[in-house]
Amino acid sequence: MSWLETELREQPAALARFLERQVPRARDLGAVFRRNDVRYVLIASRGSSGNAARYAQYLLGRANRVPVAFATPSLYTLYEQPPRLDGALAIGISQSGESPDVRAVLEEARRQGRPTLAITNDPDSPLARAAEAVLPLEAGEERAVAATKTYLNSLGAVSLLFAASTQDEAALHELERMPARVAEQLERSFTGPKDLDRYWAIGGATVVARGVNYGTAFEIALKVRELSGLLVEAYSSADLLHGPIAAIGKGWPVIVVAPSGPARAGIEELLDRLEERGARLLVIADDEVLLRRAETAFPLVGPVPEWLSPLVAVIPGQVAALRLAQLRGLDLDHPAGLSKVTLTR
Amino acid sequence: MSWLETELREQPAALARFLERQVPRARDLGAVFRRNDVRYVLIASRGSSGNAARYAQYLLGRANRVPVAFATPSLYTLYEQPPRLDGALAIGISQSGESPDVRAVLEEARRQGRPTLAITNDPDSPLARAAEAVLPLEAGEERAVAATKTYLNSLGAVSLLFAASTQDEAALHELERMPARVAEQLERSFTGPKDLDRYWAIGGATVVARGVNYGTAFEIALKVRELSGLLVEAYSSADLLHGPIAAIGKGWPVIVVAPSGPARAGIEELLDRLEERGARLLVIADDEVLLRRAETAFPLVGPVPEWLSPLVAVIPGQVAALRLAQLRGLDLDHPAGLSKVTLTR
Repeated sequence: MSWLETELREQPAALARFLERQVPRARDLGAVFRRNDVRYVLIASRGSSGNAARYAQYLLGRANRVPVAFATPSLYTLYEQPPRLDGALAIGISQSGESPDVRAVLEEARRQGRPTLAITNDPDSPLARAAEAVLPLEAGEERAVAATKTYLNSLGAVSLLFAASTQDEAALHELERMPARVAEQLERSFTGPKDLDRYWAIGGATVVARGVNYGTAFEIALKVRELSGLLVEAYSSADLLHGPIAAIGKGWPVIVVAPSGPARAGIEELLDRLEERGARLLVIADDEVLLRRAETAFPLVGPVPEWLSPLVAVIPGQVAALRLAQLRGLDLDHPAGLSKVTLTR
Repeated sequence: MSWLETELREQPAALARFLERQVPRARDLGAVFRRNDVRYVLIASRGSSGNAARYAQYLLGRANRVPVAFATPSLYTLYEQPPRLDGALAIGISQSGESPDVRAVLEEARRQGRPTLAITNDPDSPLARAAEAVLPLEAGEERAVAATKTYLNSLGAVSLLFAASTQDEAALHELERMPARVAEQLERSFTGPKDLDRYWAIGGATVVARGVNYGTAFEIALKVRELSGLLVEAYSSADLLHGPIAAIGKGWPVIVVAPSGPARAGIEELLDRLEERGARLLVIADDEVLLRRAETAFPLVGPVPEWLSPLVAVIPGQVAALRLAQLRGLDLDHPAGLSKVTLTR
């Protein structure tokens, strides 16, 4: 079995381990989100970690009611003109903890006396050393180039920080039930219909979601893209309608990520627009009405609270990415031209 | 002549008109950026206006040293859980001023007692009415669906606010020289080599930049995409290297936007990586060394200060988008399935 598939299947165990080990530390870290001088959260991240940051943007925005900004690392590195960070809580997310640009943001925040937190799978990494506090991902070593269990545990870290920072014990219990739901979802996604053969010759795809699953759309796009070298892109459904839908034509595959929740409202209208344009619809949802409209339906296990739906909604995308790459005869663990650790300044 | 070409050619006059009329108002507005209780800027925008917001992220971040966050409108609308906005200066950018989700962010900020500013081409629009202050774009009526002069004037508004808020008279003079540079660039781009025929059958393209021209890459991608229905996407060069480069294969066109400046540093390395993968390079630059590496070179007029380079760097992309759509026999003013005003919630 490939490392990729092994690690994909390890996700429930990895998430359970993270929760078993890190709840007490997260409770301590929660207090920093409630500090009076914390007006917003500033996140530095790249790649899959950046998609976990998009989840944080919705979760922390909704619950702690703290706006989340993404750092523009080049201001700290290339331009050497970092912003003033009064009011910021700076968080770096990086599975390897190696990328110099992500670290530079945390170093600058610390220099300015702001609270800093590293979320990383390597608690001895440069990023971890740069930060005042560290939340280790506990995913275990990840050997495949494409991140799977480190991504899922990054979502786990964001949701645990949300529960801890709002001191919401009910939310914590909901989160603690997720390893079992992730396992069910893996089972369903691996044993479900395998008729992806019809997509083996596609040139690419577009992945769409809105709200809390915005980052899920980007992560599924990245996973298929990394593993298959296909041109896969992601949009929020609102952004897509503001122009980019022009490129969605007859026969173009569109993966719609639509778990039940407030963001579902506009999804039927979006499906109408996509059908008018002749797109091929692949739908990840728990709602039969939406699934029936798809050429290929990826049913989600339920019920999962909407705020935690990204932890299961990404799974059908990961499995589809793996299968498409297999269909195309590609090396699952070493996609052409990619490396596990990318250093950007 | 199409409205699109007429409006594209009107850009120097539109920018000059904006500067003639709005410098005094911008000087007044500049003070709000210096308020002690303004810790960060929160921008709500979609489509081309969102690409102008990416420019603001770099410009305001570097100069005023104020971090810029992008609003997540669905928190204000679908989820009805808007964040607390203490410390925020909220700015909405919208050419039409019509989109309900952008307006919702400004309304909420105002309800929370925060300063609000609308940047719009319609000073009577709902967005303008929702904001405490308005900076009109003065672009005149724009009839083509694809934004050109309203985009350029949005960049003008951002750079004028930068000059006014930092009370930097030298910067203001540099900006006031830009209508002439934009006119030169248009002349050069329209009379330059027209050998885009070789691209008429492409399936799409990727546009790459970093730093202050990050938004330029997104705007060029959007323009080609809207006008030609081609699958064109944009990335920062750093993000591209963290995985998505996997989809850049032999013969795929990559447009690299690389005016001279601090962000140029990594561009030669990026070109190496793209050449290794067999990509076809189109380069927008003022530097001969970079231009010589391109299959198609789009030379920029010079010298233009780096911070203002987005105002000229977008022009070759706009002209190429127009020509590609002409080559493909498409309706320049009414791209299939798009409308001038998009209302998203």
